[in-house]
Amino acid sequence: MNISAARGFFLDLQARIVADLENIDGRRFRRDEWTRPEGGGGIARLIEDSSVLERGGVNFSHVTGDRLPASATASRPGIAGRAWEAMGVSLVLHPRNPYAPTVHMNVRLLVAHAAGARADKAMAPESPADEWWFGGGMDLTPYYGFTDDAVHFHRTCRDALAPFGDNVHAKYKKWCDDYFFLRHRGEPRGVGGIFFDDLNEGGYERCLALTRSVGEHFLAAYMPILERRKDMPFGERERDFQAYRRGRYVEFNLVWDRGTLFGLQSNGRAEAILMSLPPIVKWRYDWKPEPGPPEARLYTDFLVQKDWLE
Amino acid sequence: MNISAARGFFLDLQARIVADLENIDGRRFRRDEWTRPEGGGGIARLIEDSSVLERGGVNFSHVTGDRLPASATASRPGIAGRAWEAMGVSLVLHPRNPYAPTVHMNVRLLVAHAAGARADKAMAPESPADEWWFGGGMDLTPYYGFTDDAVHFHRTCRDALAPFGDNVHAKYKKWCDDYFFLRHRGEPRGVGGIFFDDLNEGGYERCLALTRSVGEHFLAAYMPILERRKDMPFGERERDFQAYRRGRYVEFNLVWDRGTLFGLQSNGRAEAILMSLPPIVKWRYDWKPEPGPPEARLYTDFLVQKDWLE
Repeated sequence: MNISAARGFFLDLQARIVADLENIDGRRFRRDEWTRPEGGGGIARLIEDSSVLERGGVNFSHVTGDRLPASATASRPGIAGRAWEAMGVSLVLHPRNPYAPTVHMNVRLLVAHAAGARADKAMAPESPADEWWFGGGMDLTPYYGFTDDAVHFHRTCRDALAPFGDNVHAKYKKWCDDYFFLRHRGEPRGVGGIFFDDLNEGGYERCLALTRSVGEHFLAAYMPILERRKDMPFGERERDFQAYRRGRYVEFNLVWDRGTLFGLQSNGRAEAILMSLPPIVKWRYDWKPEPGPPEARLYTDFLVQKDWLE
Repeated sequence: MNISAARGFFLDLQARIVADLENIDGRRFRRDEWTRPEGGGGIARLIEDSSVLERGGVNFSHVTGDRLPASATASRPGIAGRAWEAMGVSLVLHPRNPYAPTVHMNVRLLVAHAAGARADKAMAPESPADEWWFGGGMDLTPYYGFTDDAVHFHRTCRDALAPFGDNVHAKYKKWCDDYFFLRHRGEPRGVGGIFFDDLNEGGYERCLALTRSVGEHFLAAYMPILERRKDMPFGERERDFQAYRRGRYVEFNLVWDRGTLFGLQSNGRAEAILMSLPPIVKWRYDWKPEPGPPEARLYTDFLVQKDWLE
């Protein structure tokens, strides 16, 4: 295992994604470097109130701790209390144009150091007894659905995972559908994508390669969609529907998303974590769009957890 | 114990509060009655997009279950699994005028029926072996702080609790400060008020009387404040600050509020629970108001957990 290779990959991925987004948006991302009193820190890259991206963050973080909380290791009870580190890139982009979907991507590595090892708050020593696992994924949340966009996104996700086994994509596609689901509304967050966690099968090099492939396919998955939607004409009706539907994004992230809750409850950097929240959001009681296109089609044709590659 | 007396009080309180709010707003509240498949139901009274109240709900609910979840009874592990019922009134009002504060009030009764009793999904039989406890409170969340408003609200809370013991108000005031606190930001939700839970000291009649007093002091606590703020002139600057600060309300309710989470995770009526969310909300990264009045004074002079009655 080579933690610094993973760190280098994450930092490089963040830089490449930000560069392409700056290119399409025309404005530079803000940079905000932060440190965490308990160990580690991160680099937040942010854009707000721009013409293409109304709000977005592409955040790198690498945080360390002396004692892994039991809550973080439900599936590995033996390693609670060990020194640990977590690193990765997490991004959410909220385009201004209601026809352009919101997107989320995350790639991450968690390490629980061998019992007895002590984190030095910068980089803990590596040992063959360290335990590690990767996680990540990407998923798309349209406000107005386009079949072409959903198919392209899912195809690119499939391509990202194709080299790693015949059933990997199907498994991670279903995992994404199961995870990004608003249980209190019985409604998927969007059209899905891929999601994985606890990945350590097949050795560190394979798992890093898989995670790297997911991260590196993000631009191919999303940029063509953003490119063809960002300049579509829209009016107040579309902006209003977008603001209403963005409420679902807030509900999912604050009520159900384990990463957000773990971050907020473990003294993470709140402002960087909450970059996933949209810039402007509306709630109204028990509202439903009128039957027929285009708004009602989002519910009937897109928020349905189907196989987009058939 | 007389559950139907409590139910009658809650229904009457809801009706009286709605009547006074309709009087000040000039528009009628919508009424939405619902049933819960697992047992019980409620009556939601709602107003949206009106001149005084931009969004608000005054909700009654009375839900029943066959088996009390262990998560609901951390302080009473012996009663998990019993038939239970929960009833109460919960309200949140978001006025349109940024000078008028958001307010929350809740009064509730939980009953765990004697072991072996079965809920009949309407009204379980009462028994001396039933366990019960009351909870509730009210708290004020200004966007622009006024000392007069905070003092009046806290004085009324003190008056509501004065008949029930010398230390009750001080205890419930501190409980409110502790509970309505955004730990991820190190920031109180507002200027506080009172909060209590697990109340069963002194017998059922005393506890019902205390809870009743809290509910019945709500109008006296809030209406004079709404009356003097609802017509103050304001502009885009004040609306923008209000929308930004409302984001904190969303963060608290979805991340930290146990009632909201219990409701959403136990198949409660999502739309009624989420009536606590504001109609329009903005998030922006690491934003702080300029030093000095009036916006920065909210942080320095009001979100500080002080004794407003000194």
